[in-house]
This record gives sequence, structure tokens and C-alpha cells, in this order.
Amino acid sequence: MDIPRWKDVLEAHVRISSLVNHTPVFTCSTINRFTGSEIFFKCENFQKTGSFKYRGASNAVFSLNADDARAGVATHSSGNHAAALALAASKRGIPAHIVMPDTSPRVKKDAVASYGAEITFCAPLLEARESSLRNVAERTGAAFIHPYNNPKVISGQATAAKEFLEETQKPDIILVPVGGGGLLSGTAITAANMSPGIMVIGAEPKNADDAYRSFKTGVLQPPLKPNTIADGLLTSLSPLTFEIIRKNVYDIFCAGEESIIRAMRLIWERMKLITEPSSAVALAVVLENKEFFTGKKIGIILTGGNVDLGHLPFTRTG
Amino acid sequence: MDIPRWKDVLEAHVRISSLVNHTPVFTCSTINRFTGSEIFFKCENFQKTGSFKYRGASNAVFSLNADDARAGVATHSSGNHAAALALAASKRGIPAHIVMPDTSPRVKKDAVASYGAEITFCAPLLEARESSLRNVAERTGAAFIHPYNNPKVISGQATAAKEFLEETQKPDIILVPVGGGGLLSGTAITAANMSPGIMVIGAEPKNADDAYRSFKTGVLQPPLKPNTIADGLLTSLSPLTFEIIRKNVYDIFCAGEESIIRAMRLIWERMKLITEPSSAVALAVVLENKEFFTGKKIGIILTGGNVDLGHLPFTRTG
Repeated sequence: MDIPRWKDVLEAHVRISSLVNHTPVFTCSTINRFTGSEIFFKCENFQKTGSFKYRGASNAVFSLNADDARAGVATHSSGNHAAALALAASKRGIPAHIVMPDTSPRVKKDAVASYGAEITFCAPLLEARESSLRNVAERTGAAFIHPYNNPKVISGQATAAKEFLEETQKPDIILVPVGGGGLLSGTAITAANMSPGIMVIGAEPKNADDAYRSFKTGVLQPPLKPNTIADGLLTSLSPLTFEIIRKNVYDIFCAGEESIIRAMRLIWERMKLITEPSSAVALAVVLENKEFFTGKKIGIILTGGNVDLGHLPFTRTG
Repeated sequence: MDIPRWKDVLEAHVRISSLVNHTPVFTCSTINRFTGSEIFFKCENFQKTGSFKYRGASNAVFSLNADDARAGVATHSSGNHAAALALAASKRGIPAHIVMPDTSPRVKKDAVASYGAEITFCAPLLEARESSLRNVAERTGAAFIHPYNNPKVISGQATAAKEFLEETQKPDIILVPVGGGGLLSGTAITAANMSPGIMVIGAEPKNADDAYRSFKTGVLQPPLKPNTIADGLLTSLSPLTFEIIRKNVYDIFCAGEESIIRAMRLIWERMKLITEPSSAVALAVVLENKEFFTGKKIGIILTGGNVDLGHLPFTRTG
């Protein structure tokens, strides 16, 4: 599988720019004061379907030639990629087949269904998901769109950093959450081509630190029972994203669960933005490493805003 | 007390434009589909101190002449006006004296204190608040800035609708929450002068409907044990705001508590915006009166985003 080139990102941006929201960049003087740095938040929580995943999904869907597109697209996911792929397919007028664990929260099932996708439920085990997906693909001929081990998806995610750097004077650092690594590798490609001096840094939960361990050892590491409130980051790097990250990323920092919740609360209370826990991991990393980040100009991509409002981590503090 | 003229609003906007955030206007295709209308949300939840109140407070504070300003400003409030006045005074470098009920939530006490105001606690009764305020005013000579029965405050609030109409093609309706009526009367003055054909409509909780009753009877009505989740709208109209509203407002609609919570949840889930319950009353009125609002182009001012995250009205729905 080929590593996306800068030309692929430029083509992706032309392809999807009329489909995606050009999301705003927000700042917060209180958070700047707390952290001693100057942070610019790219608000992909305002992206269609509520996360940056719509960029990659729509680039993949609208890159298919007419013949391949006819049978539709398929993926297994219970999260933001599923909703993003479902909407992108609906915009192109082709079927989307989503394999979801039957244990997925109703709100996620409803979101995917509301975009008109056909959902196949399976047991909540990787093996069941993969065999269900194989069955769906054989039955329908749909093209499998992996959530991140896919050059078109990575090129699409790379457009978030492209928009950001087009309108924000050169930051010292761009800091993005890393789960499967689609956004981090896309961001690294963009930064290397638009502004090579920028440090691109990944932010990962300590409790799901496979990217950190892979980056430090130079060898792709398996996940070790990840367990974090940042449910969008439970996935692990793929060969393609690891190769890009290894070569183009400056470092990966980890943050603990308490910092993630504290960062999420800061963003909610001070910025009035609904962001999911995975989005808050980047700010959590800044809070835990003030000496490194102080005095720096930092871009953070707030990756999404899909949270279950009936189940929030904020407890009564009086 | 004089009714503010258009000239006063224009002067207010010049006076405060470098102090306040020029807040963005958001739309949401899902909410438009639900309601059958086209709604433009002016996001005053992104205003400094988290509510539109900072417009009126800063206009009042920066209108004082140097002599009057020296002794500072005072008010009694446990809510957004207190925080707004405290920050405005701090920006001008003068003292702010805030009388708050000792039962106020800690988060509100902390917010006011963080802007450097001097807080006087009193028993949570109107009489205690008024006598505490008199004591503070006598002791300090501070100027009393009423949260809405004040022409400078009303002129400041009127600038939100001015910004909105400067950048949104003429709506059919502007719909704003009404509590004490400062925002509604300011909005009515702006609309009458910038775009006289617009229907300006107030949105009030059924459980705190003194403005509705006053408007319908033509006589200022007392509050009747108001009890609503929209805690910013527990106040009742003043002689000044009632006079403006009676002459310039098209109608007042009320919404029930369930609709207010449903509207708040829609804004949180679909727009990823943290807005307080009082902000959601306008959308709640649209949800309850679809036949009236369908096909209309509507401007709504989202008045604020200060909520206690430890105490939200969203219950587990599975």
C-alpha cells in the first residue's frame, strides 16, 4: 500500500472541499493562561457527522470509479468512521454496509441508521467482526474502506491540518490524538510539505499506549488490553500509519485518565465546546508536560464531539 | 428613565466593540429539517464571561464618567450579570461589589471572584439582597448597575442583534429568551431601526410567564413563584423593559420544561454547543409551535453557556 504523497492530499482537498465543513479555529485566553502557551483549536467537532472522520471517508468514497462504486462500500466500526462512511455513501448515492457489534450504544446505531446505511450486527469480538465483514463483502461486492489503513482515508484526514496551516500563522507544534494513526499520519504529511519546521506530536492515553510503544521501540506493538475513557483511541496503529508516523512524527506523549477528564472539562466549561474524551487527550498532554509546552504556539485538532450525554464523566464537585 | 434610542445603540457598539467577542452565527441542517424552518443561531455562549450580559455590563461600566467610575460599580445577582459586571469593572480598573445569596453554587461564586470582584454574601431573599446592596452602596459610593432596568445595559444588549443583522440576510423573525427583558427590548430597538419588517418575538418558560402575562394584559404583572430549569429567566420585567417590549415586540410565546430540555439536548448533540437551559427556550418555542414557524427564516440568540456540568438534565436513555 502506497504512502500518500502531498499531491494526493491536494487532490483530496479539491475532491472533498464542497462536501466537508471548513471548520473554525478557536482560542481561549483562560486555557492559554493555565498552560502558559498559545493554543489554536481546530474544531472538527463541528465537522459533518461530528468528527474529522468524514474527511477521510468522503475522500475514499468519492475516489471510487463508477464501476467500483456501484456495489457500495463496507466497513466494521462502532464509532465515528461508521457514521462518516454512511453519510459519504449516501451523498454519493451508493449503499453503505456497516458491521457493528450488537453491544454498541443505541445512540451510535441510530446515528449510522439515520444516514441510511445497512447495518449488520455481530458479536463484539474482532473475529466475529471480520468474518461478518467478509460475508457482507462477498454477498454485496462492496469495497472495504478501512478506517485508517487506507491511503485515501489518510489523504482525507490530512486536509484538516492543511486548512489549519492555511489560516494560522506557523505554530511551533501540531498536537493530535493518535488511535489508529490516520489523523496523525495525515497531519505529519501535511506539515512536512507545508511547513517543515513544525514538530508534529501524537497524544495518546497512557491506558492505550500502543502507538507510544511502537514509536519508541521502532517495531509495531500490539495493543495490551487498552482501557480508556477516550473510546475513539482504543484502536492500534496499522503497518501503513506506523510507517508514516515513524518517519515524520517528532514524538508521542501519553496522558492519564484524570488529565483527560480534566482537559475535557476545561474545554467544555471555558470554551463552551462539546468535545469527546478522545479530543481532549491533546490538551491533557499539554497539562501534564507544561515545561515542554510553555511559551510554545500549539495547534490542536479537536477531533470530534460525539458523546453520550446520558453518561458523562463529570461528577458533582459542589 | 429614558428609553434608549437607536443612536444610543450605535454609540454602545462603538464603545464596546473592542471589548466584546464578535460571536459567530451557526446553522444546523438537522435542526432545520426537524423544525421545517431555517434557523440562524447567534452564539453568545461564546461571549466573554459566557453570556450576552457582558455587552450591557461593559457598555454601562465604560459609559461612566471618570468621577463616577472611581468608586466602582455594584449589583446584586447570582448569575451572568454578576460575572459580566465583575469582568467589565476589572477591564476598566475599578472595583466591582457583588451582592450574592450565600446559597449560590460554588461555581458561580468562583467565577465572580476570579474576575476580582468583592463579594458580599447575604441571605437568599430579595429583601436581604436589597438591603445588603444599599449598605454596600452607602459604604463605597459605588454606582448601582441594574441587570436590565438600565438604558445603558439595554443599549449594550441591543448590539447582539445589530451584529446579527449586519451579517445575516433579513430573517422573518428574531426570537430571543425573555427574563428581565433587557435582551428582548434591546433586540426590538435594533430590529425596528435596522429592518422594521422583522417580527421580534420573546420566548419564555411557561413556569415563569410574567412577561407573557404582562404583554397579553398590557399591565406589568408580578412573578408567580417561577420555577424553571431556565434559571436565567426567573427574573421579571421592569417598568423600562416592559414599556419597550409592549410597543415593539410582535408576540411572546411560552414553552414547557420538557421542550426546553429537549431543545437544549438538540443543541448539545447536533450543534456541539454548550448552551444553558435559558438559551434553549427559543428553540423550545419553535418545537412547540411548528405550524407558526414552518417555512420561516429565524434568528435565535443563544444567550449563554454557563452550566454546572456536575448537574445536567440529561438522563440515561439507553
